[in-house]
Amino acid sequence: MQSEATHAQVLTTVDVVVLTLVEGVLSVVLLQRERAPYVGVWALPGGYIHAQEDADAQASAARVLRSKAGIEGAYLEQLATFSGPARDPRGWSVAISYCALIPQQLLPAPRSGLKIVPVSAVGQLPFDHGQILQAALGRVRSKSQYSSLPVYFLGESFSLPQLQQVYESILGEPVNKVSFRRKMDELGMLEPVPGAMQAGGAHRPAQLYRVRPEFRQQLALSARGL
Amino acid sequence: MQSEATHAQVLTTVDVVVLTLVEGVLSVVLLQRERAPYVGVWALPGGYIHAQEDADAQASAARVLRSKAGIEGAYLEQLATFSGPARDPRGWSVAISYCALIPQQLLPAPRSGLKIVPVSAVGQLPFDHGQILQAALGRVRSKSQYSSLPVYFLGESFSLPQLQQVYESILGEPVNKVSFRRKMDELGMLEPVPGAMQAGGAHRPAQLYRVRPEFRQQLALSARGL
Repeated sequence: MQSEATHAQVLTTVDVVVLTLVEGVLSVVLLQRERAPYVGVWALPGGYIHAQEDADAQASAARVLRSKAGIEGAYLEQLATFSGPARDPRGWSVAISYCALIPQQLLPAPRSGLKIVPVSAVGQLPFDHGQILQAALGRVRSKSQYSSLPVYFLGESFSLPQLQQVYESILGEPVNKVSFRRKMDELGMLEPVPGAMQAGGAHRPAQLYRVRPEFRQQLALSARGL
Repeated sequence: MQSEATHAQVLTTVDVVVLTLVEGVLSVVLLQRERAPYVGVWALPGGYIHAQEDADAQASAARVLRSKAGIEGAYLEQLATFSGPARDPRGWSVAISYCALIPQQLLPAPRSGLKIVPVSAVGQLPFDHGQILQAALGRVRSKSQYSSLPVYFLGESFSLPQLQQVYESILGEPVNKVSFRRKMDELGMLEPVPGAMQAGGAHRPAQLYRVRPEFRQQLALSARGL
C-alpha cells in the first residue's frame, strides 16, 4: 500500500492552447514565463489547480486565462491529459490541457509578456507544449469538418461569407458555397439577427447571423463532413 | 502565491471503463471496492497514480487493470479527465479516465469481487462512474461509425461476417454488407490469415482476417461514416 505522501508527489496543472484568427491566419497566445522552470521562455498559459477555489479543472483553465492573460469569454473544450515523470522538471506531473477559441477582438491589447503568433511560426516550446499545441490543431481541424466549432472565432454577429472564410482558413482549402450553406442549415445553430445587414463593400449588403443561445457553449454536430 | 502543500491537496487517480462483448451484448467489467469510500460497492476499476513506477497515466491504467482485475492486453484509449471537490469524498480529485476494449476470451474467469455486466443493466455506480461509463459508451459508439475501433472486441483472427456482427452490436442497427466490406477495404487495417478458414456451420467456410501489425494499437480512420 502507498501512503498519501506518495500520491501527493503528483503535480496537477492545466495548460491552455488559446487559438484565434488574425487576418485569417490561425494564431496562438503565448505568455513569457515569470518564474522557473524556463523563466523568460514563451509558453502556453498554464498553472496549478487551486483546490480551494476551482470548481473543476475547466474552472482552473478559465482562472489561469483570466488572471495570467486577461482573457475572458473564450469557448473552452478539454483536449487531453498529458502526464509522466519527465514532462516537467519539478517532478511527476499531470497537465489537463484545454483548447480555447476566441475572436481576435476579445483578446487583450498586446503587452510585454503576451504575444499572438501564427501557429506555423511558433518554433520550440518548453515542457511538452509543442505536443499539446499539435493536439489542439488536430482537434480544431478535424472538428471543423463536421461541427460548428469555427463560429467561436467570430464575434457576436457575422455574415455567411465571413463564416465560410473562417472555415476555409482552418481547413486550409476552399469550400463550395452551396454545400457550405446546406451544411450550415443542417447544423441549425445559426439564426438571422433581425434587421441587421453587413454594411460597406462592393457587393450588396449581406444578412448578419448569430449563434442560437442553446449552441453558445455547445457544439452543433453533423453526421457527415463538409 | 500558493504553497506546494496546497497543490498536494489534489488527488490524482485513473478510472478505466473495460468494455467487452458477451454473446453480442456490450458489457462492462465492475470490481467490488475493497476499502472506503464505498467499501463493498461495485465500481469501475480505478486507483491512484504511483509516481515511482508509472511512466504516464496510461501506464497507471494498465497497472490498475493488471493488479486489481487480472486484465492484460486490452486496447486502451484516454477518454476524458473528470475533476472537482465533490466527485470523491476524500477531497478535490482528478480522475483521468480510460476506455479499454478487450475480447471476452482474454478476460479472467469470473471470481468473487469481479463481474461483467451488460451496460444496460449497470444501475447506480459510486463517485461519478456513471458519467464516466456514459462518456465511454458515447465514444465507442461514435468512433465505431468511422474507425476500426470494434476490431479490439475480437480475438486474433475472425471472419468478415463476425466483424460485421460486432459493428452491428455496437451501432445497434443492421449494416449493409456491401458498404461494410467497401468500408473495411477503405480502412485498410485487415489482412487475410494465409490458409485460415472458419470451420463449421451450414455456410461455406469463410476466410479469416487479422489486424495488420501497424494497426494493433492505432486506429484506422475513415473520412465518412458507415
